[in-house]
Amino acid sequence: MDIGRIRAETPGCADVVHLNNAGAALPPAVVHDTVIDHLRLEASIGGYEAADAVMDLLTDSYAVLARLIGARSDEIAYVENATRAWEMAFHAIPFKPGDRILTTTSEYSSNALAFIHAAARHRVAVEVVPDDEHGQLSLPALARMLDDGGVRLVAINHVPTHDGLVNPAAEVGRLTRAAGALYLLDACQSVGQLAIDVTEIGCDLLSATGRKFLRGPRGTGFLYVRRDVLDDLHPPFVDLRAAEWTGPHSYELRPDARRFETWERFVAGQLGQARAAAYAMDIGVAAIEDRVLSLATRLRAALAELPGVTVHDRGLRKSGIVTFTHADLAAAEIVGLLAERHINVRVAQQSYRYDAGRSPLPRVRASVHYYNTEEELDRTTGVLAALLQ
Amino acid sequence: MDIGRIRAETPGCADVVHLNNAGAALPPAVVHDTVIDHLRLEASIGGYEAADAVMDLLTDSYAVLARLIGARSDEIAYVENATRAWEMAFHAIPFKPGDRILTTTSEYSSNALAFIHAAARHRVAVEVVPDDEHGQLSLPALARMLDDGGVRLVAINHVPTHDGLVNPAAEVGRLTRAAGALYLLDACQSVGQLAIDVTEIGCDLLSATGRKFLRGPRGTGFLYVRRDVLDDLHPPFVDLRAAEWTGPHSYELRPDARRFETWERFVAGQLGQARAAAYAMDIGVAAIEDRVLSLATRLRAALAELPGVTVHDRGLRKSGIVTFTHADLAAAEIVGLLAERHINVRVAQQSYRYDAGRSPLPRVRASVHYYNTEEELDRTTGVLAALLQ
Repeated sequence: MDIGRIRAETPGCADVVHLNNAGAALPPAVVHDTVIDHLRLEASIGGYEAADAVMDLLTDSYAVLARLIGARSDEIAYVENATRAWEMAFHAIPFKPGDRILTTTSEYSSNALAFIHAAARHRVAVEVVPDDEHGQLSLPALARMLDDGGVRLVAINHVPTHDGLVNPAAEVGRLTRAAGALYLLDACQSVGQLAIDVTEIGCDLLSATGRKFLRGPRGTGFLYVRRDVLDDLHPPFVDLRAAEWTGPHSYELRPDARRFETWERFVAGQLGQARAAAYAMDIGVAAIEDRVLSLATRLRAALAELPGVTVHDRGLRKSGIVTFTHADLAAAEIVGLLAERHINVRVAQQSYRYDAGRSPLPRVRASVHYYNTEEELDRTTGVLAALLQ
Repeated sequence: MDIGRIRAETPGCADVVHLNNAGAALPPAVVHDTVIDHLRLEASIGGYEAADAVMDLLTDSYAVLARLIGARSDEIAYVENATRAWEMAFHAIPFKPGDRILTTTSEYSSNALAFIHAAARHRVAVEVVPDDEHGQLSLPALARMLDDGGVRLVAINHVPTHDGLVNPAAEVGRLTRAAGALYLLDACQSVGQLAIDVTEIGCDLLSATGRKFLRGPRGTGFLYVRRDVLDDLHPPFVDLRAAEWTGPHSYELRPDARRFETWERFVAGQLGQARAAAYAMDIGVAAIEDRVLSLATRLRAALAELPGVTVHDRGLRKSGIVTFTHADLAAAEIVGLLAERHINVRVAQQSYRYDAGRSPLPRVRASVHYYNTEEELDRTTGVLAALLQ
């Protein structure tokens, strides 16, 4: 991987040390230009006319995203963000009263809110699979809970937003498939940093965003729907993109995953997200994963040596997300002090967590990407060492 | 109104005769620049950091949109497009079996699809209010249907997508309010071309888009939720923007209309949409309405004189949307022939219409905006006259 070239292709690298890739990564110039060029075309000839002019690219964008995760292009829906993708999938499941939903301790708060919503609406039971000794979802516990029967859905994150662990997605897939339950994987924080193959993982549904590790635009995302489960699901919203109106009381859903889409969208963003996926594949997703994990390991080790710092990341396998707290300085203070030095990190905070209850201690989240350098990490820990003395 | 200045501020005016404003209008440079400047900032310092930097503008964007339609800023939600705004509102209504929904003959297909969806899910009845002798929704018929009782919702468009009529929104509001039903107005085609005041109209819910007559970016929209009905509605999707997760089985919805939002969004687009609304108010919405209606009247009159042309627009009051067919040339052919001459019009087509059944004849839709000129209209009808000879 030619880091010098990659950084030269990433204008923001000149301005900031960007360790907020789990928030929104810096886009490569080619992604940024793709978006802006299309916006210019829209302003010049009209929004619909511009979309007509790039119809082939828009059609191809599904194949590009499919290739990124080992899917087929008819299994991909363009959606405005990962939350919307996840919601469209989750609320499409025809739950029956008494159905069980299994999730994990580190689940994202928006997903948990949807579980609560569904529990009230459909009288389903939401159960949290305990962690194993490494802090990841316990596979033996999951197996036992699946054995108890009645599980309609296993819905977990691949990589949590506030913890450096990687959940054992493929092992979860094998157990879930064997039990005949649906498997919805929230890959918001993993697509773009980890090599992902939906067949290997065995998920039925996968939600992803453009703006994070994929380095695409804000306001973009996509949903994978495995072909075999498409007809078991009922999209919660149906517009003229999703279905054809055939009579006063009838419509026909389209035959592919785009039945989960809305017709109108940020077209320039859709082009940009596909361009970002192509860029990642040009570099190589396996090489990206290797470098991200290696940089994160280095950062964790350096942080762990700082006085008063606790690194919180759990899991047998870890991601590019590094989370820590300091004994005296609040997370928001650390984020502010680093921001003054043009080092971007973020507070990772949820109002509630399954594993920590109400108002858990906010953490600093430093999330690396392959375009970060060892020097940037060392500079960051150096600044922290000076601040925390 | 200084048309010369306005056209100079609209780069696309130099490239095309844009009569597809009911599709997506040409943005003013200031809107385009607002979007692009923010995308540049995101690429330079990071997507979240850029949003932090414009937090005041983002907060203010609600007040700007509220002012445009005579609402309060806590009654506005930013949503990705008008369809999504409408869906979030419609699916938030706690229908009971047997509830009646009243709509109009010219209803937008995506809304009709949602009616069918709700009819199956909640066993509600969807009834189409007949037209009056002018072709608009019949107010006496609406009054009679409301009198029959059990109406939970009146959901109509303000301006249809395929007909030049303007529905009598305020009269519908008075009847609906008196009957104690909810009133959802699809203002996708009216916001930006007509002066709109939600208090005068008396709607409880109003959905709008950025890209059409408001001249904002694609992939933007907003929803108005009257404060008094907010707590009677249950947002169909709830994410961490909409609610705070307070316990394993509980959350608290936020106290304003933003409970209908998703946290992640096309931030640059949100800024652009607000800028577009401010631009419209600077010009003056009453002046915009006057000019749009006057240009459309001129265009209709000129088209009606062309051999073989039938203008289809109904209604006592008409909008900036002009629709027509030709006896011999198909709508798509006319659109293609005009496109070759850099004149943008569109085919208006639905797979079904309440008033016309399956596969109604496609129409040519020429939709004017205040930045169009009389000369552009005359050129268009001149080209058509030559083509249709």
